[in-house]
Amino acid sequence: MFRHRVKVRYAETDQMGIVHHSVYAVYFEEARVEYMRHIGKPYGELEREGILLPLLELHVRFIKPARFEDVLEIEVSPLIKGVRLFVDYTVYREGEKIAEGRTVHAFTGPDLRPMRPPENLREIFGSEP
Amino acid sequence: MFRHRVKVRYAETDQMGIVHHSVYAVYFEEARVEYMRHIGKPYGELEREGILLPLLELHVRFIKPARFEDVLEIEVSPLIKGVRLFVDYTVYREGEKIAEGRTVHAFTGPDLRPMRPPENLREIFGSEP
Amino acid sequence: MFRHRVKVRYAETDQMGIVHHSVYAVYFEEARVEYMRHIGKPYGELEREGILLPLLELHVRFIKPARFEDVLEIEVSPLIKGVRLFVDYTVYREGEKIAEGRTVHAFTGPDLRPMRPPENLREIFGSEP
Amino acid sequence: MFRHRVKVRYAETDQMGIVHHSVYAVYFEEARVEYMRHIGKPYGELEREGILLPLLELHVRFIKPARFEDVLEIEVSPLIKGVRLFVDYTVYREGEKIAEGRTVHAFTGPDLRPMRPPENLREIFGSEP
Repeated sequence: MFRHRVKVRYAETDQMGIVHHSVYAVYFEEARVEYMRHIGKPYGELEREGILLPLLELHVRFIKPARFEDVLEIEVSPLIKGVRLFVDYTVYREGEKIAEGRTVHAFTGPDLRPMRPPENLREIFGSEP
Repeated sequence: MFRHRVKVRYAETDQMGIVHHSVYAVYFEEARVEYMRHIGKPYGELEREGILLPLLELHVRFIKPARFEDVLEIEVSPLIKGVRLFVDYTVYREGEKIAEGRTVHAFTGPDLRPMRPPENLREIFGSEP
Repeated sequence: MFRHRVKVRYAETDQMGIVHHSVYAVYFEEARVEYMRHIGKPYGELEREGILLPLLELHVRFIKPARFEDVLEIEVSPLIKGVRLFVDYTVYREGEKIAEGRTVHAFTGPDLRPMRPPENLREIFGSEP
Repeated sequence: MFRHRVKVRYAETDQMGIVHHSVYAVYFEEARVEYMRHIGKPYGELEREGILLPLLELHVRFIKPARFEDVLEIEVSPLIKGVRLFVDYTVYREGEKIAEGRTVHAFTGPDLRPMRPPENLREIFGSEP
């Protein structure tokens, strides 16, 4: 299972002394991008082919707060269902799950109009009807 | 119904030419903060009383992309259920709904340990058992 | 003199309890954008005409920290010298100066190649040889 | 010479298709933090000892734009002069300098009041009268 490692930046904390909740979407994205590079289909390449993956939904469940300099590991698990890409994330700190989430994506052209997911992406990500 | 107005900043766009999805959590928060000011209970005052509202969950559904200089109106609708604060958001642009979301909050002290919601907040936000 | 008002967001604070220094560049930009709208030349319009203003330099001097919910007023003062746009900023809180800065911009086309500043912008911003 | 490596995130781009200029301050900070860890004085440890390093000045000169997925290397070079910490940064992409900058810091306690730099930090960072 692919895991991406990220280290909490100072700028990502807020005055509660914890990582601001909006930052998890950025962590998820970085993990998703690295996952795609890992499976041989870098996101930048996809964009250059004219395929974008804008978000339709974002869900995060925060279990324990993350703090400055924490090293987080993010597990990424994608699946294409119909014309949607679902990506699930689990965030660990020293083996303990501290957050989890999901993003749901459309496949679009550069004009942000929906398209069907290309067949090779179905194979790469895994798919269900 | 309370609506908070926000104008999209250049820094909030990404190379797709739209507002990055992580920014909606920041808009929601700003709207929530302004809502609390509006009902006479500024968030900063709450923090000074030792009450924090860390997030347990964040959900966003993106309907249409927002763009640089768009003026967005965000409707905020809170409800306390049990020991949780639920806040619903609807984002409008020129009267059209372009996104919606929900945050779920715990009530905690400055040490981030859970506490019961103070009675006056139950009255202010509205509550269900 | 044009002043743009901005209210500090919770997400903009860090664990020192103050506005993270990187955010001032975002405030400056928002003030610059509103200034351009104010003088009748919205930045979005400029971009649609194929003129971009990427930064060459950013300078900020922090005098006093800004905090959550502070209302800041940002004075904007532009000047074209040669092929560069210089914009000076002063940040006030309740009449007291708490920061100041400068951005230096090139004029470029959408390909980010330098161009000479259009004559009408020289007039709008003011210019020196 | 210490160099810290950072990879450009999608969220850090703007609609010009380049890294937003405000992000360089975040890169500098991350590089500074990693530098301090590298020399055996992690920033978090410093904060726990009650020493903060708030910024007095930030300067960035942008030479070439950085783009999504670029791998940047940031050279960090600190020096204490009097009661100030000066840190210089050079940003490289594939060996080419694309930006440079400086931050100037005060030494303060948790109340953000200035203090003299501790002697051990003078030794660690290097100092001039």
